[in-house]
Amino acid sequence: MPSVDLNSDLGEGFGTYRCGDDEAMLSIVTSANVACGLHAGDPEIMARTFAIARERGVAVGAHPGFPDLWGFGRRRLPFSTGEIERLVAYQIGAAAALAAYAGHRITYVKTHGALGNIACEERDIADAVVRAVRAVDPGLALLAVALTELVAAGDAAGLDVYQEIYADRGYTETGQLISRSLPGAMIEDAEQAAARVLEMVETGTVITARGKRLPTPIRSICVHGDSVHAVATARHLRERLEYAGVTLKPFGSNSK
Amino acid sequence: MPSVDLNSDLGEGFGTYRCGDDEAMLSIVTSANVACGLHAGDPEIMARTFAIARERGVAVGAHPGFPDLWGFGRRRLPFSTGEIERLVAYQIGAAAALAAYAGHRITYVKTHGALGNIACEERDIADAVVRAVRAVDPGLALLAVALTELVAAGDAAGLDVYQEIYADRGYTETGQLISRSLPGAMIEDAEQAAARVLEMVETGTVITARGKRLPTPIRSICVHGDSVHAVATARHLRERLEYAGVTLKPFGSNSK
Amino acid sequence: MPSVDLNSDLGEGFGTYRCGDDEAMLSIVTSANVACGLHAGDPEIMARTFAIARERGVAVGAHPGFPDLWGFGRRRLPFSTGEIERLVAYQIGAAAALAAYAGHRITYVKTHGALGNIACEERDIADAVVRAVRAVDPGLALLAVALTELVAAGDAAGLDVYQEIYADRGYTETGQLISRSLPGAMIEDAEQAAARVLEMVETGTVITARGKRLPTPIRSICVHGDSVHAVATARHLRERLEYAGVTLKPFGSNSK
Amino acid sequence: MPSVDLNSDLGEGFGTYRCGDDEAMLSIVTSANVACGLHAGDPEIMARTFAIARERGVAVGAHPGFPDLWGFGRRRLPFSTGEIERLVAYQIGAAAALAAYAGHRITYVKTHGALGNIACEERDIADAVVRAVRAVDPGLALLAVALTELVAAGDAAGLDVYQEIYADRGYTETGQLISRSLPGAMIEDAEQAAARVLEMVETGTVITARGKRLPTPIRSICVHGDSVHAVATARHLRERLEYAGVTLKPFGSNSK
Repeated sequence: MPSVDLNSDLGEGFGTYRCGDDEAMLSIVTSANVACGLHAGDPEIMARTFAIARERGVAVGAHPGFPDLWGFGRRRLPFSTGEIERLVAYQIGAAAALAAYAGHRITYVKTHGALGNIACEERDIADAVVRAVRAVDPGLALLAVALTELVAAGDAAGLDVYQEIYADRGYTETGQLISRSLPGAMIEDAEQAAARVLEMVETGTVITARGKRLPTPIRSICVHGDSVHAVATARHLRERLEYAGVTLKPFGSNSK
Repeated sequence: MPSVDLNSDLGEGFGTYRCGDDEAMLSIVTSANVACGLHAGDPEIMARTFAIARERGVAVGAHPGFPDLWGFGRRRLPFSTGEIERLVAYQIGAAAALAAYAGHRITYVKTHGALGNIACEERDIADAVVRAVRAVDPGLALLAVALTELVAAGDAAGLDVYQEIYADRGYTETGQLISRSLPGAMIEDAEQAAARVLEMVETGTVITARGKRLPTPIRSICVHGDSVHAVATARHLRERLEYAGVTLKPFGSNSK
Repeated sequence: MPSVDLNSDLGEGFGTYRCGDDEAMLSIVTSANVACGLHAGDPEIMARTFAIARERGVAVGAHPGFPDLWGFGRRRLPFSTGEIERLVAYQIGAAAALAAYAGHRITYVKTHGALGNIACEERDIADAVVRAVRAVDPGLALLAVALTELVAAGDAAGLDVYQEIYADRGYTETGQLISRSLPGAMIEDAEQAAARVLEMVETGTVITARGKRLPTPIRSICVHGDSVHAVATARHLRERLEYAGVTLKPFGSNSK
Repeated sequence: MPSVDLNSDLGEGFGTYRCGDDEAMLSIVTSANVACGLHAGDPEIMARTFAIARERGVAVGAHPGFPDLWGFGRRRLPFSTGEIERLVAYQIGAAAALAAYAGHRITYVKTHGALGNIACEERDIADAVVRAVRAVDPGLALLAVALTELVAAGDAAGLDVYQEIYADRGYTETGQLISRSLPGAMIEDAEQAAARVLEMVETGTVITARGKRLPTPIRSICVHGDSVHAVATARHLRERLEYAGVTLKPFGSNSK
């Protein structure tokens, strides 16, 4: 059986506002994508999240998004590719510093929300993200949704790219995430989601809404941290994977 | 004759707002303290400032301040020492990343405004700043106002500390900057300021309002970049120093 | 038996961040203090809160705080009295406009967090708040913690002032709220809190930690909306008051 | 000869950042569009601008924009029509309150930057702006670029609508402002601009780049306040208009 990583977007509160149960999630996942203060997160939350991750042996990555706390980084803001490079570089640096402060080290970058969506869809945005990562630290890996432009851009630039699938999101016939505004976007049933993930991991394919199988390396599974049932769903998935003999560990951890 | 560094706070605009003539100042100074986006500056301005500094051989440092764009970092905000550590670490990291993006490298940290003032006055705040610098990169130097708690804290922690004097600020009898609300705070006359700086550099002393001389190493001179006559004043000071045989170069540049 | 108002700070989320269960609280309270976008709240949340309050016959007031989303308005920021006047005026205006947009009307002002605390303690800050209210609309009432400088300032300026007590906070022997960092600050037991409130309303006194009774008009009771048991506690208090024959209605509603 | 209003966007600094010479412009214009704190401006600047305008007999209006200080309200942010309604209402209310605080009164609304552009182009956005104005105060007038959807929307809703032309912007053959990225967008020569404005005012037409004349009521002329030559250009225009016998006074001032 293969090994796989389990990642989640964490540290997405702000000040007194909370977003999900980070403490609980950090006992389940093997990698934590940590918000960098522009769409969510702040220096206090970042340092705390990195510290807990370090204690629990959870790998950490920078999770940059658009500077849009009000919209939680979900609005598609009209930034140029150059502006996106600088925004991403800024956030990677801030995350790297606070991870170091907390005695940990970021090993990868994953883009958030609307920035992540357009980086998956548009090659010039993907290239901008990749240029920012390389400029700050070419040793950082890229965690990217499988079968997207971001994977292609990272590969072309020689970054370590790790593909992820989403545990609870439906896929179109070309392997894209079904838009949240359409039916089939979310897989609500935890057991159904777990069974599908297991099959995708075992077969090395993304399974579309109609059952088509699209081959891709799968190095990580993304679980959400901020819904009502997030913790229970993630825990169930982890148990199902372990029961099936899948080893859960951070991507890239063999070679490092 | 000794060599000395000439530093200025630059990159302090925000979006379309400008603050001083950074282009001109970067032709005069040998070190640029670059705002990190919380009290001033943004990723665009940071990257541009680092890029021009690189072209002109100007050393760059992170210039962290309180998260207070509205108050330009001049309000004394009630943050704990721990919060200050995280705020400073965050900003150093962001600056380091954008310097790398621009092909440059930050070599030091200088605190801004109210944060700088309390770090000079209160040892526990000074220690917090020093801990943040060390946690992110112990190879970074500290640029600190001569004869302050911040110098003592940096020395105690084993950081490279470089003392600076202010070209246009009056000094109390204990070597502190005279508060801007009191008479004698500012030395308006450019020639008078230059002559006093030259004497301080040549004698290795801070000269107080009453003429007392307080011995201290002087490794850098701070000139303001944002007043009406900033560029002319800084240029005049540079010419006077060079005419007197003082070599202008970034502090710490011999040993690196 | 007297009638009394039941108020709570509501609309304190921001963007996707939630803070308490506003929907539920708006079925319990008779007055809602609505955050104005600087320490919490945003135009979407404000309009929604005003609209629901209108539907349920709940009176609404502006709830201005310091411009400190990160600190939720709980940090004591060093603003001058003049700056506080402008900050308060700005927020009252924004709230009045969004209430009008939602078909409702604000009838009072209550200060939030650190701004509220210093307005209760320091007469010059209290006077600044009162000047702002009067300048924007002298017909607005002031909801103020009983036995404080803010009550005195409002009275002196001829505003309609309504005194409130806190359902779950302990009182010092001079009638001030016991600081949250000290023992006795919070009354955790819902029944104990309700019994004390009832006694305070019936006797027209604030009851201190040691049982002293300080006479004061009591026109409103503040219940918290954002703790885990907020809704249950508030509902229990309302039921106890009604069972005892106390009429719950917005303060000032007889005369308007 | 007709009378006409001269308006400018003022109060667009933020904290210590300045934007143009508001003091000087307030001696030239007859109406000041005052930024409301979301794209520019803050409570201090707003109150000061309103106070000076009052002293000089300058009419004032709210100048709402997108919540985008970094982009100065020039980025086209993807807000829904409902969100735009609430954003505009919020800002009108804040401006009305600070005008009252300063002893003045806003009499109109003019949208800023990207929000203004899309309100001129898209009827549903224009309708949203109009709904916000009406909801807050149907007695407020709308200052709108001549020949746009915003004029039509305001007329349809029964608002007082006053059309403005731009002193230094070129017009397309359909009467739209030529995009700043295209040649002919700006009329740099102050005398040429003044002569063209005078002709437009005298003939009651917008004159396009090719000389076509598009009839429209013209009640106000917009001059920019933030360019290098802004004050001199505005003063020259005012003098030319007065020399030609045009009376300069706030639009709508006859009937109120």
